[in-house]
Amino acid sequence: MAEQSKFKQEPHKLLVIPGPIEVSDDVLFANAHPSMSHISPDFISVFGDSIRMLREVLFTKTGQPFLVAGSGTLGWDMVASNLVEPGEHALVLHSGYFGDSLAECLKVYGAKPVQLKAQIGAAPTPDELENALKGSKFKIVTVTHVDTSTGVLSDIKSIAEVVRRVSPETLVIVDGVCSVASEEIRMDDWGIDVVLTAPQKGLGTPPGLSILCASERAIQTFTTRTAPPTSYYASWVNWLPIMKAYEQGTAAYFATPPVNLIYAFNASLTEITKGKVSLEERFRLHREASKRIKQAVTDLGLKQLVLDPAFAANGMTAVWLPEGVSVPNLLSAFAKKDVVIAGGLLKDFKTKYFRIGHMGISVVDSSRGDVDKIIDALGQSFREAGAAK
Amino acid sequence: MAEQSKFKQEPHKLLVIPGPIEVSDDVLFANAHPSMSHISPDFISVFGDSIRMLREVLFTKTGQPFLVAGSGTLGWDMVASNLVEPGEHALVLHSGYFGDSLAECLKVYGAKPVQLKAQIGAAPTPDELENALKGSKFKIVTVTHVDTSTGVLSDIKSIAEVVRRVSPETLVIVDGVCSVASEEIRMDDWGIDVVLTAPQKGLGTPPGLSILCASERAIQTFTTRTAPPTSYYASWVNWLPIMKAYEQGTAAYFATPPVNLIYAFNASLTEITKGKVSLEERFRLHREASKRIKQAVTDLGLKQLVLDPAFAANGMTAVWLPEGVSVPNLLSAFAKKDVVIAGGLLKDFKTKYFRIGHMGISVVDSSRGDVDKIIDALGQSFREAGAAK
Repeated sequence: MAEQSKFKQEPHKLLVIPGPIEVSDDVLFANAHPSMSHISPDFISVFGDSIRMLREVLFTKTGQPFLVAGSGTLGWDMVASNLVEPGEHALVLHSGYFGDSLAECLKVYGAKPVQLKAQIGAAPTPDELENALKGSKFKIVTVTHVDTSTGVLSDIKSIAEVVRRVSPETLVIVDGVCSVASEEIRMDDWGIDVVLTAPQKGLGTPPGLSILCASERAIQTFTTRTAPPTSYYASWVNWLPIMKAYEQGTAAYFATPPVNLIYAFNASLTEITKGKVSLEERFRLHREASKRIKQAVTDLGLKQLVLDPAFAANGMTAVWLPEGVSVPNLLSAFAKKDVVIAGGLLKDFKTKYFRIGHMGISVVDSSRGDVDKIIDALGQSFREAGAAK
Repeated sequence: MAEQSKFKQEPHKLLVIPGPIEVSDDVLFANAHPSMSHISPDFISVFGDSIRMLREVLFTKTGQPFLVAGSGTLGWDMVASNLVEPGEHALVLHSGYFGDSLAECLKVYGAKPVQLKAQIGAAPTPDELENALKGSKFKIVTVTHVDTSTGVLSDIKSIAEVVRRVSPETLVIVDGVCSVASEEIRMDDWGIDVVLTAPQKGLGTPPGLSILCASERAIQTFTTRTAPPTSYYASWVNWLPIMKAYEQGTAAYFATPPVNLIYAFNASLTEITKGKVSLEERFRLHREASKRIKQAVTDLGLKQLVLDPAFAANGMTAVWLPEGVSVPNLLSAFAKKDVVIAGGLLKDFKTKYFRIGHMGISVVDSSRGDVDKIIDALGQSFREAGAAK
């Protein structure tokens, strides 16, 4: 399926924001596959294989993947319009920016979200979750696995365990946009009902796809709902037959799939599931790179947004700026070293911190030397940006 | 902005379905642009220029473009959830498959669609429209400019004229998925309120983008609506500030844009608006190629689905199969000549007809010889498929 690219990408600045990330030549030039019919046998098999490989990445045998042109955000619409009926309650575990937006999305489709908020840099605890579940009946509990705005990693295994024990009918929804393929997720073993994500982070593919995987229980909830789904483009009534058809090797039409991007996604999934590095080793390499970068941050006397190291993401790091260093100065010092990092995202603190992504080939392919480059640039840029105030 | 590609795409079968279509090397390899931050100055200007060039293609000075990761279908959700409020009436002019789907989409968001249906191969007439408008009050009238299932071209200039005269507050919504950049559309002069489209047809770009342009009147309708929009991902509350920011040269975040695809779209828009062939000449070349292909169809004794040649699309042709020739046989005879065409799309007649696309570089760049290749393959394949029954 995935062929070795004949093309090599041009030299360019190293992109280490928390997504989009650097992608391999094979993936990038699969995105420049000559135009193909969306119902050609070649494309059907590339689409079907992508569905199957996504299951491997999420350690699920029975999950139902959905691959739809869109962004990670569209996955929220899928959850809100297919799994929750108007008037039903949703518990949103809030660990940053994305909790607020998800709650907003749920409201639009008629659900009643309640947020369980942690302070900045933390995530709600399993005990807090247990109390909340005992107080009310929730159709779904949502958790942002890695909140890209804070770098907080939620313990989705424990969260799912609490939900399964205290409120077994409640669906566990994981926003894995900034975690899939960089953090371990075992859908079946952990009892997770939905993982939604996007291609441009740990999955090492250009952006433009909404990627979601639903458990059998989630599909059952969808098929037995009483009111029809409250969205059209995000409706599984429209998409489920398409996904089944492509997986079974035939074509079906609802809307034209992003053909080239599916070729690119297939190339990346092939690297992830069939490459030299196993998934377990991939997760270990993310942890190792993360440790090195976080140590470099600490060595500079800087503080992460994450309050407890046990809840720090392994694919990104968010760091408070000290007095006298501005985001633009820091970013431009990095840019002079041909390294692109990101500023803050939390509304009230945008100008107070910066973020570094360390996912995908930048940490898996050590021959690139990206982690060293990040650490060198960090030290030098800090001195320069501090001086340039 | 758009640089000459250093790369050349591999030899491959000529793709002449009614989208996706063949794309130029510049466009294809812009889709393989090295990873870029969605808030980098370089990308912001590429995004802003794409917005501005889209206005040129649609002959509008004041239209507000939206470029969102998704498919053409998502444009319907934008219309249904932003411009119509629950309980309001919509008149859907039906000229094939896409009228039914659009009516379905409107219903999901609470609108009350009425379809004005023509027989297969025709479109509702301006007189029928006038009668319908006099009978009821409609918030929007929708028309499929070219219905990809039938090849029927609707006369959107006359339709808009009737609506403006008879029911001036009603918004005119054009589904231009299979027409933008292959058929003339003058948004401002003709009084059209929304054109929604997709990149993989006349716009000569890989699929994966929902492209929409809204008139000032449409934006006014949106900003003065009483209920909030009924979608989240398709909501202009979320997207309007993003489009304005990128056009003004700053970044804003709602969901990650499909960065690479925007580079590709920019490359194609650059060819269309700044290339050697003017827009008027581009339309003329589409008409000329269409005439040649339709003549070849007639010469073979075959009949188009379109009943009246005045209502035939210039970017595609749909043709009834004679007795004894099956779609699979015909498609495989074409494939042996390295030409890929499409079967039928209308639910009840899928196996009774075939479709050829003739848009973009296949008709604009005559040095490729694609039109000759299509005509040669048509004659030969027909003889072979007839013999192979």
